[in-house]
Amino acid sequence: MEPLTDKVVDRLTLYHCVLTHTLTDRPFVASQEVAALLKLNDSQVRKDIALCGVLGRQKHGYPTAELKRSIERRLGFADRKNVVIIGAGNLGTALTNYTDFRDYGIDILALFDNHPAKIGRHINGKTVYPMSDLNRFIPNHQVGSVILTVPPAMAQTVAETVMACGVRFIWNFTPCVLRVPPDVVVHYENIIGSFLQMQNGP
Amino acid sequence: MEPLTDKVVDRLTLYHCVLTHTLTDRPFVASQEVAALLKLNDSQVRKDIALCGVLGRQKHGYPTAELKRSIERRLGFADRKNVVIIGAGNLGTALTNYTDFRDYGIDILALFDNHPAKIGRHINGKTVYPMSDLNRFIPNHQVGSVILTVPPAMAQTVAETVMACGVRFIWNFTPCVLRVPPDVVVHYENIIGSFLQMQNGP
Repeated sequence: MEPLTDKVVDRLTLYHCVLTHTLTDRPFVASQEVAALLKLNDSQVRKDIALCGVLGRQKHGYPTAELKRSIERRLGFADRKNVVIIGAGNLGTALTNYTDFRDYGIDILALFDNHPAKIGRHINGKTVYPMSDLNRFIPNHQVGSVILTVPPAMAQTVAETVMACGVRFIWNFTPCVLRVPPDVVVHYENIIGSFLQMQNGP
Repeated sequence: MEPLTDKVVDRLTLYHCVLTHTLTDRPFVASQEVAALLKLNDSQVRKDIALCGVLGRQKHGYPTAELKRSIERRLGFADRKNVVIIGAGNLGTALTNYTDFRDYGIDILALFDNHPAKIGRHINGKTVYPMSDLNRFIPNHQVGSVILTVPPAMAQTVAETVMACGVRFIWNFTPCVLRVPPDVVVHYENIIGSFLQMQNGP
């Protein structure tokens, strides 16, 4: 299968959200309904759905359950990804409680923090461990991705620690650019950029 | 000026971050240095910078301070945008403390919540008001954009309240799709989509 572009991944995730939470309780759904809700072009929605291999039926639209399963397959929700959150502050806590990440193949196993008052606490059923446990935890649990929500001043040091343990994906929520070797992917959750995109208009 | 695409806005914001936090204390910066840090193509970086109207100097690169100012002008950091955060939970609190949004033209004026224990509290110098004050606060302070961090079950109702007060931009951090009229922009902070983009590779 050809790899999906970032924009397609973004839109397919939103279609899945529409099918899960908004256009429920119906056997068929039309691309126009999805397009209208997300203010997208109908032909764009149909093109994206075609990448998932689902066929619409004349006059009916797409079978809802099948469409949902096809998006899940195309986006790899069944591939389990072991993840930890580093930084159990407000943002780390918010992400732990955010949604059922497990539905999307994202297994948040634990949180890590250096603050004595936080260590040993449980957030949405996940334990907060001290940062010094990262060296053991990451290889033992085959953690491939980390969510970085530490204070900016710690970001680079923590990134180096987890890369030394074999982590290849860093989902960076700090407002810092990280220096990493070629085989490591940093995905910037660029909050300011996101706001400016919104103002940039539809 | 031609409008910038979302991708360009995203990248320019990251270049600005590099110039502010990483490649500081130097009069000139080369596009190759920025490209290497963000793992981008050098010609891409030069093309983006050209959109800001800065010229590089042979052998030297771009004058750092001028490049930074030009990005700020192109992205409109000087245009003040009055914003409120609705939902003073972990995510709303994290965003209030996130960075100095004012540097980017984003004035977070206040937070709103319905929880009695939160009302009247101060988070990073911003007051938490009851939701019932939104009708007065939004028009009085010319708030054009809201950051929505309420629980999913409240998202649509709160969106309707603020739209009735004249808000045109909703930065939606809830995992919900919102039904809005054509003149309102919802910008989805699609957390799951963002994670999947990262796994999608470089």
